[in-house]
Amino acid sequence: MFQSKRINKMECSPIRKLAEFEAIAKKKGVEVIHLNIGQPDVATPVSMLDAVRKFDGTVLKYADSRGLPSTVDTFIKYYSKIGIDFEARDMVVTNGGSEALLFAFIATCDIGDEIIVPAPYYSNYNSFADIANVKFNPVLSTLEEDYKLPSAADLEKAITDKTKAILFSNPCNPTGAVYTHEELMEVLNLAKKHDLYVISDEVYREYVYDGLKPMSIYDLNYETDRIILIDSLSKRYSACGARVGIIASKNRELMDNVLKLGQSRLSIPTLEQVMASSILEVPEEYIVETQKLYERRRNAVIDALSKVEGVKCSNPRGAFYIMVRLPVKDSDHFAKWILSDFDYEGKTVMVAPAAKFYGIEDYGLNEVRLSYCLDEAVLVNAVNILEKALIEYKKIYE
Amino acid sequence: MFQSKRINKMECSPIRKLAEFEAIAKKKGVEVIHLNIGQPDVATPVSMLDAVRKFDGTVLKYADSRGLPSTVDTFIKYYSKIGIDFEARDMVVTNGGSEALLFAFIATCDIGDEIIVPAPYYSNYNSFADIANVKFNPVLSTLEEDYKLPSAADLEKAITDKTKAILFSNPCNPTGAVYTHEELMEVLNLAKKHDLYVISDEVYREYVYDGLKPMSIYDLNYETDRIILIDSLSKRYSACGARVGIIASKNRELMDNVLKLGQSRLSIPTLEQVMASSILEVPEEYIVETQKLYERRRNAVIDALSKVEGVKCSNPRGAFYIMVRLPVKDSDHFAKWILSDFDYEGKTVMVAPAAKFYGIEDYGLNEVRLSYCLDEAVLVNAVNILEKALIEYKKIYE
Repeated sequence: MFQSKRINKMECSPIRKLAEFEAIAKKKGVEVIHLNIGQPDVATPVSMLDAVRKFDGTVLKYADSRGLPSTVDTFIKYYSKIGIDFEARDMVVTNGGSEALLFAFIATCDIGDEIIVPAPYYSNYNSFADIANVKFNPVLSTLEEDYKLPSAADLEKAITDKTKAILFSNPCNPTGAVYTHEELMEVLNLAKKHDLYVISDEVYREYVYDGLKPMSIYDLNYETDRIILIDSLSKRYSACGARVGIIASKNRELMDNVLKLGQSRLSIPTLEQVMASSILEVPEEYIVETQKLYERRRNAVIDALSKVEGVKCSNPRGAFYIMVRLPVKDSDHFAKWILSDFDYEGKTVMVAPAAKFYGIEDYGLNEVRLSYCLDEAVLVNAVNILEKALIEYKKIYE
Repeated sequence: MFQSKRINKMECSPIRKLAEFEAIAKKKGVEVIHLNIGQPDVATPVSMLDAVRKFDGTVLKYADSRGLPSTVDTFIKYYSKIGIDFEARDMVVTNGGSEALLFAFIATCDIGDEIIVPAPYYSNYNSFADIANVKFNPVLSTLEEDYKLPSAADLEKAITDKTKAILFSNPCNPTGAVYTHEELMEVLNLAKKHDLYVISDEVYREYVYDGLKPMSIYDLNYETDRIILIDSLSKRYSACGARVGIIASKNRELMDNVLKLGQSRLSIPTLEQVMASSILEVPEEYIVETQKLYERRRNAVIDALSKVEGVKCSNPRGAFYIMVRLPVKDSDHFAKWILSDFDYEGKTVMVAPAAKFYGIEDYGLNEVRLSYCLDEAVLVNAVNILEKALIEYKKIYE
């Protein structure tokens, strides 16, 4: 039977599309180390899981479309602690950052409108753009410059009369770049000049290294009416399976509109919001210790990668991803091959081919994104496996 | 700042938009009886809540995009018990029936394509159509004929070269109509003739009355390649807050495409799927007793409404909604007024104005949808309050 053209055209997630090749590895009894996905091995705070275990309701009811009042109140207090002054009407609790992004795209763009995004960017942004029928105009940031935010001049060249917003994640998935106040101020001035929204995805806010302090674009306290904040519990509390996100803005008209989208799906799950209502009970050390852990892992993975011949990587200063240029022509082919045709001592590695993170034709073909949210020893071993695989792959294909 | 045209045009849910008038009532200390929303007062099965309470994981991880394997396996067994033979590849677990519908629309329709839907229909369908940029062609069913499914001839008149699917809920929200095998066979033949999908929303499957037996369109075992099943735990197990739904089809190509949409948002919440994995442990009596309870409530609400002057209602045979024609010109105005300006002995009633359930201009303006998933005494009292309100309203406005 027929299928819609748009669904046929839609690409599989580069993070998840290798599942069938993973299945081949598993069938052979090969253990797969997942560097493809940002699924931390860090324990979720016990107090959060306990909050759900203690749920004493008898009817599992719909929540409010904006979010359970206790959850909204908790987020208001969380933001207040980091210096951001939100009221309930400024936010809608969402099905992860994913739904928050989709809502932001629909609320700001009509069909065919455009969003500027520094590339490489989180590849799933493409799917939300597809669903919202929005076009991305990627502007290149480069490994050589540690993926710093493109200059306002470069971003401006990509603006057309259909551009409605500038979108980025900060700290950046997949590059690990952390944007400076100066860079963000440039972006806000550019947005002001062209009357654009700025969508700031800050789900990795607390995980920055080298002595950097966590920051939000709201810290600039400038042009707040055009800022849309995307946030999520997933990475901060290693609660990816909770799928609790937030879209927030001081633009009331926008948020009243976003609430219509929230009403359309009635509410997000109630129990996960009970969990979210307990985040203020998580001890501060949880974030501090996790931040230190990720920094050590980053150092270990960079150290290990620096010893692999022909490999080049940037120096991520936040989040837990690293972009790696491999000595191969087609990282997509390599990523499949290493799963289906290779193992070292019974293990292999799953990586995310990076071309789809760029959204620019023929770009990033020899790059992959690695996630370093696993144990240090596992990471070092994974890089070792990668090294052996690259030698073997070169013998076969070059 | 600007907003997208589509978001400005999008209507608030008629089920949830009265929230601000509800707030007025509550502020005055008036108790509000909610007949506007299908939130049952029935206890969620204890075994399902316990399944979550017993969750012993330490990391709350992402689930598979298709659904936790244990959840998918549970649904396969559930469907097998009711005579439907699904495999894992035939389904994707979704964020409630809501997301399942959105996925069905996107997978079958391109922008501007059309879906035929008997009116009145579940009003939130409009929002998913808005998000998917799909147009509805409603075909009228009437109170006088107990909202029976429009004839194939009537449905056919609404088909254009842009029509891609026929959508309905069965048992029907908001009418309570239960479609017969013969009616469904007519629809499937029509779909076959015009090469259309049939989207069958069966979330109220088990709740049918007057000796009717629960049924699925799959029972016909005919043209299964064009059938898309929408399902949900919300109503069956009084677990609306779980937001666990299913989209299923024996059309493999379609479901492979739907999985792309599932991958775009990574996964639905893990804990709620742990709960869903336990539904086979719910004793059969739970559904049997709940079905009997709703049947008694239906009888009580029809009995009470039949005594109210000027009111006319249909005879619902499934789900837990009833469409009621009121002796007013504008049920939207009445629904706001009864919240903000009326109470009887400190109580008032929240109803869902029905015009948006029709999607046909100037139709259903004097109708409301009432939900009867509350205690019998509460329902009878609510109808009594409605009666007093109608008398008072008539004095003021006529």
